[in-house]
Amino acid sequence: MARGFRIRTNKVGLPPGTVVHVGEERTGPVRITVIDYDQDHLREFCPTSLDMLAEFRSSPTVTWIKVVGVHTPEVIEEIGRSFEIHPLVLEDIVHTDQRPKMEDYDDRVFIVLRLLSRVEGEGGRGEIRSEQLSLIVGRGLLISFQETDMDVFEPARDRIRKSKGKIRRLGADYLAYSLIDAVVDSYFLILEEVGEELEVLEEELLGGPTPEAAQEIHRLKRDMIFLRRSIWPLREVISRLSRGESEIFTEPTEIYLRDVYDHTVQAIEAIETFREVLSGMLEIYLSSISNRMNEVMKVLTIIATIFIPLTFVAGIYGMNFDYMPELRWQWGYPAVLLFMLISGVIMLLYFRRRRWI
Amino acid sequence: MARGFRIRTNKVGLPPGTVVHVGEERTGPVRITVIDYDQDHLREFCPTSLDMLAEFRSSPTVTWIKVVGVHTPEVIEEIGRSFEIHPLVLEDIVHTDQRPKMEDYDDRVFIVLRLLSRVEGEGGRGEIRSEQLSLIVGRGLLISFQETDMDVFEPARDRIRKSKGKIRRLGADYLAYSLIDAVVDSYFLILEEVGEELEVLEEELLGGPTPEAAQEIHRLKRDMIFLRRSIWPLREVISRLSRGESEIFTEPTEIYLRDVYDHTVQAIEAIETFREVLSGMLEIYLSSISNRMNEVMKVLTIIATIFIPLTFVAGIYGMNFDYMPELRWQWGYPAVLLFMLISGVIMLLYFRRRRWI
Amino acid sequence: MARGFRIRTNKVGLPPGTVVHVGEERTGPVRITVIDYDQDHLREFCPTSLDMLAEFRSSPTVTWIKVVGVHTPEVIEEIGRSFEIHPLVLEDIVHTDQRPKMEDYDDRVFIVLRLLSRVEGEGGRGEIRSEQLSLIVGRGLLISFQETDMDVFEPARDRIRKSKGKIRRLGADYLAYSLIDAVVDSYFLILEEVGEELEVLEEELLGGPTPEAAQEIHRLKRDMIFLRRSIWPLREVISRLSRGESEIFTEPTEIYLRDVYDHTVQAIEAIETFREVLSGMLEIYLSSISNRMNEVMKVLTIIATIFIPLTFVAGIYGMNFDYMPELRWQWGYPAVLLFMLISGVIMLLYFRRRRWI
Amino acid sequence: MARGFRIRTNKVGLPPGTVVHVGEERTGPVRITVIDYDQDHLREFCPTSLDMLAEFRSSPTVTWIKVVGVHTPEVIEEIGRSFEIHPLVLEDIVHTDQRPKMEDYDDRVFIVLRLLSRVEGEGGRGEIRSEQLSLIVGRGLLISFQETDMDVFEPARDRIRKSKGKIRRLGADYLAYSLIDAVVDSYFLILEEVGEELEVLEEELLGGPTPEAAQEIHRLKRDMIFLRRSIWPLREVISRLSRGESEIFTEPTEIYLRDVYDHTVQAIEAIETFREVLSGMLEIYLSSISNRMNEVMKVLTIIATIFIPLTFVAGIYGMNFDYMPELRWQWGYPAVLLFMLISGVIMLLYFRRRRWI
Amino acid sequence: MARGFRIRTNKVGLPPGTVVHVGEERTGPVRITVIDYDQDHLREFCPTSLDMLAEFRSSPTVTWIKVVGVHTPEVIEEIGRSFEIHPLVLEDIVHTDQRPKMEDYDDRVFIVLRLLSRVEGEGGRGEIRSEQLSLIVGRGLLISFQETDMDVFEPARDRIRKSKGKIRRLGADYLAYSLIDAVVDSYFLILEEVGEELEVLEEELLGGPTPEAAQEIHRLKRDMIFLRRSIWPLREVISRLSRGESEIFTEPTEIYLRDVYDHTVQAIEAIETFREVLSGMLEIYLSSISNRMNEVMKVLTIIATIFIPLTFVAGIYGMNFDYMPELRWQWGYPAVLLFMLISGVIMLLYFRRRRWI
Repeated sequence: MARGFRIRTNKVGLPPGTVVHVGEERTGPVRITVIDYDQDHLREFCPTSLDMLAEFRSSPTVTWIKVVGVHTPEVIEEIGRSFEIHPLVLEDIVHTDQRPKMEDYDDRVFIVLRLLSRVEGEGGRGEIRSEQLSLIVGRGLLISFQETDMDVFEPARDRIRKSKGKIRRLGADYLAYSLIDAVVDSYFLILEEVGEELEVLEEELLGGPTPEAAQEIHRLKRDMIFLRRSIWPLREVISRLSRGESEIFTEPTEIYLRDVYDHTVQAIEAIETFREVLSGMLEIYLSSISNRMNEVMKVLTIIATIFIPLTFVAGIYGMNFDYMPELRWQWGYPAVLLFMLISGVIMLLYFRRRRWI
Repeated sequence: MARGFRIRTNKVGLPPGTVVHVGEERTGPVRITVIDYDQDHLREFCPTSLDMLAEFRSSPTVTWIKVVGVHTPEVIEEIGRSFEIHPLVLEDIVHTDQRPKMEDYDDRVFIVLRLLSRVEGEGGRGEIRSEQLSLIVGRGLLISFQETDMDVFEPARDRIRKSKGKIRRLGADYLAYSLIDAVVDSYFLILEEVGEELEVLEEELLGGPTPEAAQEIHRLKRDMIFLRRSIWPLREVISRLSRGESEIFTEPTEIYLRDVYDHTVQAIEAIETFREVLSGMLEIYLSSISNRMNEVMKVLTIIATIFIPLTFVAGIYGMNFDYMPELRWQWGYPAVLLFMLISGVIMLLYFRRRRWI
Repeated sequence: MARGFRIRTNKVGLPPGTVVHVGEERTGPVRITVIDYDQDHLREFCPTSLDMLAEFRSSPTVTWIKVVGVHTPEVIEEIGRSFEIHPLVLEDIVHTDQRPKMEDYDDRVFIVLRLLSRVEGEGGRGEIRSEQLSLIVGRGLLISFQETDMDVFEPARDRIRKSKGKIRRLGADYLAYSLIDAVVDSYFLILEEVGEELEVLEEELLGGPTPEAAQEIHRLKRDMIFLRRSIWPLREVISRLSRGESEIFTEPTEIYLRDVYDHTVQAIEAIETFREVLSGMLEIYLSSISNRMNEVMKVLTIIATIFIPLTFVAGIYGMNFDYMPELRWQWGYPAVLLFMLISGVIMLLYFRRRRWI
Repeated sequence: MARGFRIRTNKVGLPPGTVVHVGEERTGPVRITVIDYDQDHLREFCPTSLDMLAEFRSSPTVTWIKVVGVHTPEVIEEIGRSFEIHPLVLEDIVHTDQRPKMEDYDDRVFIVLRLLSRVEGEGGRGEIRSEQLSLIVGRGLLISFQETDMDVFEPARDRIRKSKGKIRRLGADYLAYSLIDAVVDSYFLILEEVGEELEVLEEELLGGPTPEAAQEIHRLKRDMIFLRRSIWPLREVISRLSRGESEIFTEPTEIYLRDVYDHTVQAIEAIETFREVLSGMLEIYLSSISNRMNEVMKVLTIIATIFIPLTFVAGIYGMNFDYMPELRWQWGYPAVLLFMLISGVIMLLYFRRRRWI
Repeated sequence: MARGFRIRTNKVGLPPGTVVHVGEERTGPVRITVIDYDQDHLREFCPTSLDMLAEFRSSPTVTWIKVVGVHTPEVIEEIGRSFEIHPLVLEDIVHTDQRPKMEDYDDRVFIVLRLLSRVEGEGGRGEIRSEQLSLIVGRGLLISFQETDMDVFEPARDRIRKSKGKIRRLGADYLAYSLIDAVVDSYFLILEEVGEELEVLEEELLGGPTPEAAQEIHRLKRDMIFLRRSIWPLREVISRLSRGESEIFTEPTEIYLRDVYDHTVQAIEAIETFREVLSGMLEIYLSSISNRMNEVMKVLTIIATIFIPLTFVAGIYGMNFDYMPELRWQWGYPAVLLFMLISGVIMLLYFRRRRWI
């Protein structure tokens, strides 16, 4: 399956800003969690109604509204209305095929990232899953939208709860950084797995070229195309954030963003390296096949070249002509056998000189 | 057929600004539709004479003059005169091989796009058709020229009629955006179809390399070259529009243009990904062929290497020498058969050790 | 022949600014034509002596001095002296291997272009010829130098004579534009021919891979390298002219230059597309050869694998041992025939299961 | 093993700025050496406690604190506290998979380089080892962190001890330059070794394509990918330092940095050249295999084409039909032999004409 | 031999600015020639002692000190002291593996170029030799350092002696230009030779693919890598000089530098074109081999497919069963012959239909 390469288009023809879910079909209710904190207080709850969110629109604390599931447009639209989010942003949140990007709306920044995970696919082979993470960052406000409950943010949430690190002292921008950092870190988990598979594959290739290895190489090559497409644009996004393009992101956070920028570059470089390594493996595979074919051909040629002429000679003396004087000679048979033996040896010497044996 | 790669040159030698139709030959009358609207009023009609257009030159309402068919130079020239369009623009409108571009004439913007569609070609295979869409956007005025009546604009026209969305409140620049958005959305329909064909093709390739699959890969590769050529320059066009390079396009529209810019980038990325996937498929195809050839060679070599020497032995005892003592031995025949059997088994063991079997 | 890839060096060691003809050897006299015009008057003549040119150095009319043949350095030097042309410019005019370029000497612009034509080469195959066109453009003055009398400028000259278009109203810069436009238009004639050959070649390839087709592909690929090298730098030249880098080129002409810039980009894109199509064709060619080899190998293997063992069996019963009981059995012969038949059928079934048949 | 391509991730989930060693596991104590000097004095010792370092924080002399071993976070954190190093910097020092980079913290510059060495790997083949060198450069202060005690800095230390060159007269920035210069020089040692291996490999390839040569080519190709990844970003780092981006690096040192910049570019170019040479070798290898296969096929075809038809003829006259008049003819046998001889010669002539022999 | 790809490192560990000769080992004395001239006077001599050079340090005339041989560090250091040359410059002069570069030291410009020549190598094949030319250009002073006495500067020296051209009227910067121009012109001599070899090679390839042609292609490809590496950076050097980056180079000379810049670009383009042509040739070579293999396989398959089954039939009737009724039939033999003939013809027709014959 051209996994990840499907283009989805059920939005065609609708007016811009229409909030229609586009992407993998999902079901189940939308789950919303709110974490509201400052240095001293912490409150965490699941709102029973969307109206409960309104109070956090301009509270002095930092509020993280985590929305899991974007397949119910009504909920997204309701949140959009509560927090005055631009319709195009809402459209992008539910249209889950976005590439990473960042849009600056003065008092809000809209950031799209790809959440990637590697799951056991058919035949035990790892398969990369991708979903969209949308962040709306304002002063003291962070709304995150994700498709499923991937738990990459658990450590960040833990740090908030335990008041560990700087996270409780700094604002929503630092929280946004923490989430982005967690996402980028999760890419390395995937890359580590791929790196291990590459090592296994390399061992396999040394044992000889199997069609399965070729398929595995192609599968990983495609995975790399997919990963690169998902991560490459993120570099630009984080670079822009770390250069202070938005006023939401304050200077103390920018230093941290430069750090996560470095990690993103490292991830991209690892992908590029894997791509080159895979190309090299394919070359090894193809040249192994050529080598092997060459060897097979040599065996065939040696056998055929030695025995076909000898069989011809035997055929000659198998003819039934009345007058074949050699057949009557007493030493005819041994002479022919000797001749055949000598021919065979000469052939073998010839092949040895040509280095075929 | 090198479809889409034909260069057409019947214009050579004419003075610049000469309005001569260059492109696929088309017949039939030029059809003009006028939609004139503001927030409160809407008027839609097909003008019976070109003179009727003059009144819209400076009306306060938004006027969309939709011209279908550019193969009649007289009509285009007449419209050009009515609205004071630069001769080079008129020339570009009828010379339908233009690449997407944008030209700023202070109070007018001239935009060229490619309208793409995928039609059933010979043998049931999809074939990409391309025609030119030229837009002249002024304050309260939009003139669109297209070659055939492709209906990608129907939803936009519907929104105008039903006063849905912002389209009735905003000016001609928003209308222009709506059309560009509709065009870019239509690209995704094509990409979706291509994506589905890729999946089918991939399934096919797993079953073994057929020459038809190779041809299909090459056909799709060429389609990608063609699509890229048609869409790539559009990126630059929309980028320039969204950066406010022209005064015609107002700030509220620019946000929307940035959105359609994102879509264009997404389309280009999908094309690039498809290209990489197709290259990967070709590699799979070629390595499958090598594999298969290898396998065929192995079968041939095993059979030949076992039986050619044995046939030689049989040939020996088929010779008619008078003095061949073995022929007279009572156990000669079974001994030879046994020898043959052992030789054959040794050969098989050798092939097994070489992992050919 | 590595046509167009010859490097010519008979200038090495001479001081800079030496006017020595370097390039294809040509003979025959240098032919000079003068066209002098303004909106009302037109004068066209072939000067009998170079002194006659001096008067046009600062006449208020537009003067086009067309020099055909640059292989006589004396004439070029004489013209250079009359019009005070920099020695390095004169050197470039006679050294006819220049790449397109533009040099701004305040009151003069020196432009070099390549005039390309496709002539019937050996074996009926089109061959691209290239010569150098040098333009010196001043206020009211255009001197053009070309190697042979290619007639791409005839339509422009006709427009001057018949006072058609803007050409008589505007200055020498518009005239220069007209010539450049004519040159760029002539490129499309070549590209059209190449496009047609590509279509023919593609049809041929569908019928099976012939070595001639491979050679034709390689020939066209090389032609594309050559064309690209000749046209690519022109893009930059025209871009700089159209951006008003020289004061000689006035604003009204710049709009027209932007148009010819578009055409140049289009030509370059066509070349790039042709290159990609040709690469695709080569891939098709190579994979067809692989396919065909595969097919040949299969036929050989099927025949050999069926008959070599059977022949061995026949060889067994052709042996002349005294004690071969089977030979005496009454049903021995039909039994062997039946055994052979069954073996053959089993083989065929095996091949069918492997999808070789 | 995909050496150097392992991604290590035991840091995932920790808060940013956590000092946890990530990289190859190492043991043994952390060794610290201090060299404190100005033009007149020199003091060199191994501090018994980390508290002894504090006094050098603002001494007027130049102090080089050389830390060997970064796998004990406590030591690194202690040093970090003593010299007020940013937590993110400390994290980068112990996370030893960093790519070369430079970070400017006003009164400090943080520089990361890769220390490369080529050690004897399994099978006597050279293997590239990479470790991280982190430099913190302040006014009169240089702290270097490395993983193992590679002795590339010995000459620099010697120059300090013997007061040779400018090193004693200039500040910590010149010392930093000296270390970077030593690192870049050490790259050339590796490149020299690789260059020599390339020569040996080339000789080998001339003798015929062996699978070992192919594997060696692929191994070296991968080494080049690894080297490039380690050195390429250094170019940017040194370029930024030499352009005076940091105030720590004074103008006299900048001239020297430009020199080491040139060396880095030279190293990168050598790598690129090696890559191209290796690609060329692979092409030679593959075309040699094709050639050889071609030759093998020719021998097989010549032998088979000559003897298979002759064997058929012999088979005809080996048939046991009662009525085969030729068998009774007195000259039948010599006639058949002659016919076979002539057929064989004709075949040979045919092959000669086709240039197969 | 990986000619030109050797990395030399005997400098590692020495302090920067140490003047130690690195490069091909050379012997013989260092030869120094001085040419001192202004518009009216000319003096040319070989100084017997280095002290004689001191007087030219600030003479109003133009002085060209030509140093041949840089393998004696003492001489270079002495000259360095006399003319106050920066130690890093002296180091670069004797370290003869520099890539082309330009360094501006306010009142001096240091320029490095590669002097290339093509000498008869082993087996009559041209081999490219490279040495380093270092120029130190000051006001009225030019010191040139080269490794051997390649005579590319003879024409320039002649022009000085004969007071031909502008050379005597202009300063040291024009002299420097003249030398650079001579060097760049000499590149074209090499490119011309390579171009001729390409033509010969192309003729050869048409006659069929020989392993020698493949080796020649690879050799030339490598030569192109080497040439590009030597010339490519020169483009940047001359561009910077011609843009007036150094005050030493006056405006009149800049026009000439722009000319030599054009030549450098032309040389680079020729190299790129040669590279593409060589890649095309390799493709032709490989597809020829495939073609030829295909043809060989077809011959084998046709012969084997026709005769193996026939031999089987002959084998059947060569069996010695007692009861084989056909053998007794009077028309048995002719019937079998007829059957064989018909089978053969059917096979041939089958091959014809498959277009194998």
